Amino acid sequence: MAKGQVIALSGGVGGAKLALGLSRLGLDDDLLIVTNVGDDFEHLGLNICPDLDSVIYALAGLNDQEKGWGRADEGWRFMEAIGELGAENWFNLGDRDLAMHVVRTQALARGESLTQVTAAITRQLGITANVVPMTDDPVRTMVQTTDGPLAFQHYFVRDQCAPVVTGFEFDGIRQAKPQADFMAALRNPDLRAVIITPSNPFVSVDPILHLLGVRDALEATTAPIIAVSPIVGGLAIKGPAAKMMTELGMPSTALTVAEHYEGLIDGFVLDESDAVLADDIGSLDMRALLAQTVMVSLEDRESLADYVIAAVDELAP
Amino acid sequence: MAKGQVIALSGGVGGAKLALGLSRLGLDDDLLIVTNVGDDFEHLGLNICPDLDSVIYALAGLNDQEKGWGRADEGWRFMEAIGELGAENWFNLGDRDLAMHVVRTQALARGESLTQVTAAITRQLGITANVVPMTDDPVRTMVQTTDGPLAFQHYFVRDQCAPVVTGFEFDGIRQAKPQADFMAALRNPDLRAVIITPSNPFVSVDPILHLLGVRDALEATTAPIIAVSPIVGGLAIKGPAAKMMTELGMPSTALTVAEHYEGLIDGFVLDESDAVLADDIGSLDMRALLAQTVMVSLEDRESLADYVIAAVDELAP
Repeated sequence: MAKGQVIALSGGVGGAKLALGLSRLGLDDDLLIVTNVGDDFEHLGLNICPDLDSVIYALAGLNDQEKGWGRADEGWRFMEAIGELGAENWFNLGDRDLAMHVVRTQALARGESLTQVTAAITRQLGITANVVPMTDDPVRTMVQTTDGPLAFQHYFVRDQCAPVVTGFEFDGIRQAKPQADFMAALRNPDLRAVIITPSNPFVSVDPILHLLGVRDALEATTAPIIAVSPIVGGLAIKGPAAKMMTELGMPSTALTVAEHYEGLIDGFVLDESDAVLADDIGSLDMRALLAQTVMVSLEDRESLADYVIAAVDELAP
Repeated sequence: MAKGQVIALSGGVGGAKLALGLSRLGLDDDLLIVTNVGDDFEHLGLNICPDLDSVIYALAGLNDQEKGWGRADEGWRFMEAIGELGAENWFNLGDRDLAMHVVRTQALARGESLTQVTAAITRQLGITANVVPMTDDPVRTMVQTTDGPLAFQHYFVRDQCAPVVTGFEFDGIRQAKPQADFMAALRNPDLRAVIITPSNPFVSVDPILHLLGVRDALEATTAPIIAVSPIVGGLAIKGPAAKMMTELGMPSTALTVAEHYEGLIDGFVLDESDAVLADDIGSLDMRALLAQTVMVSLEDRESLADYVIAAVDELAP
């Protein structure tokens, strides 16, 4: 079996599912999961990192599988009390989830980096994969809409993705230094693969790709780069990706996602149910790869991860 | 009925019981409850004000009557998660209670004073009495013990009052400015009364009395000052007051508390079960007043408050 580090670029829920699958293949600390921080925000004085937490909760087995976000056996007494006190309560913070935000906020306030506090938390929770934020610097995704610009969580949670999207900006992206382990792995000649998980290409993956130096390093690496489609049968498995595509004037299909990554990736995994798109995708500068990409069970996550790792090794030079 | 403001000096649980009784006598905003902040501390990055919160929860009807502290219908998922994350978990923060600390911490961080955030919270919770901290500046009670000095919550909660007490210090007391409404009321010639609630004299009331200018103003006012004993039958109703007295070489009786306040108060309310102490207390420079001081029911709180208000009006010049 091939050696070397595997980098997975991840947003929240969809990315976290594949990240969990990858974490169960015995890669141990050769697996580096790089999470988007463009969705991060400060709320009620707490530093909240939704994508990072989705990955951590998934890998630690603490996530709520039915709800699809947050922690299992969650309680809402805090939110009830927040409402009584008249404070902002449009963003749901579960009683258990809150511990993460409080511990992280305290660590950041005393000068630790997001990388450091994430390492401490993942170690404490027994996670063997390396989970790092894409940067320790603030990057904030702004969704441009016909109603004006909206901070991502205002668009996504408060306004429930209702405003019509016209584009995206990543505030702070030019000043943000890509996370050090991430860049070192990208530049390592022994890098085994880069996997773009099935997360939203515009708001989950693009912030990572737009960090200064990341795209250059991806173009320079000889390691295979594979993306997994978050769109199946014209619908996003989760979240607003398909709605965004339509509003931006693009067909909401896996082909659009493949085109979005053209020039960057070597292979594109689309769902078997979208086999009709395989020829068009194969005519782009990438291999079209058909797999069962909808991850319902733990076995689905492991199978897709297995498939993707086999595919990258086959694509290796 | 007499007019003018009534000031109640309060610590946590015992003080909050009488404060609730007083708040139900129709004094409305003529009642000014001044709470100790010497027990306040920062924990997990949150600003925690235990005495202030005990008073607020009692007056809002949100307190846990059985447990005697914290909020009713409280949950502990946050604490479980804090434990999983390996963070400090010796101080119990309930899921509902947490909302108060988060909202307050955020308000203080954006530059509001403790007085301002307390006013906003009490208004939001429908409390008509004025509740103010003794000062907006940091004062921290240090308990001197044979094991060395301990921050109050470390002594009280973490070490469960086990260390032997030798004295007290109130860090920051000389720099702390007494809260403005408190001082204005104390100096108002129309002040109706000052009531020292049945809180711990050493760590709940003394920090208030030690603020620069407070003792002078208390000695200057013509309004009656009455204290209610927190010690009944040689035992503290709640907390370590009796244990502290014994360790400091004082008999743990209501007489000791009366002596502690001698020169300051005009009347001392002791429990009917301690009637045997009335002559000794009456021979101090104060009136000994017998009442039913153990507050179990809401009616007990109202009766004692009624009794105390009648007593101050009788003592009025």
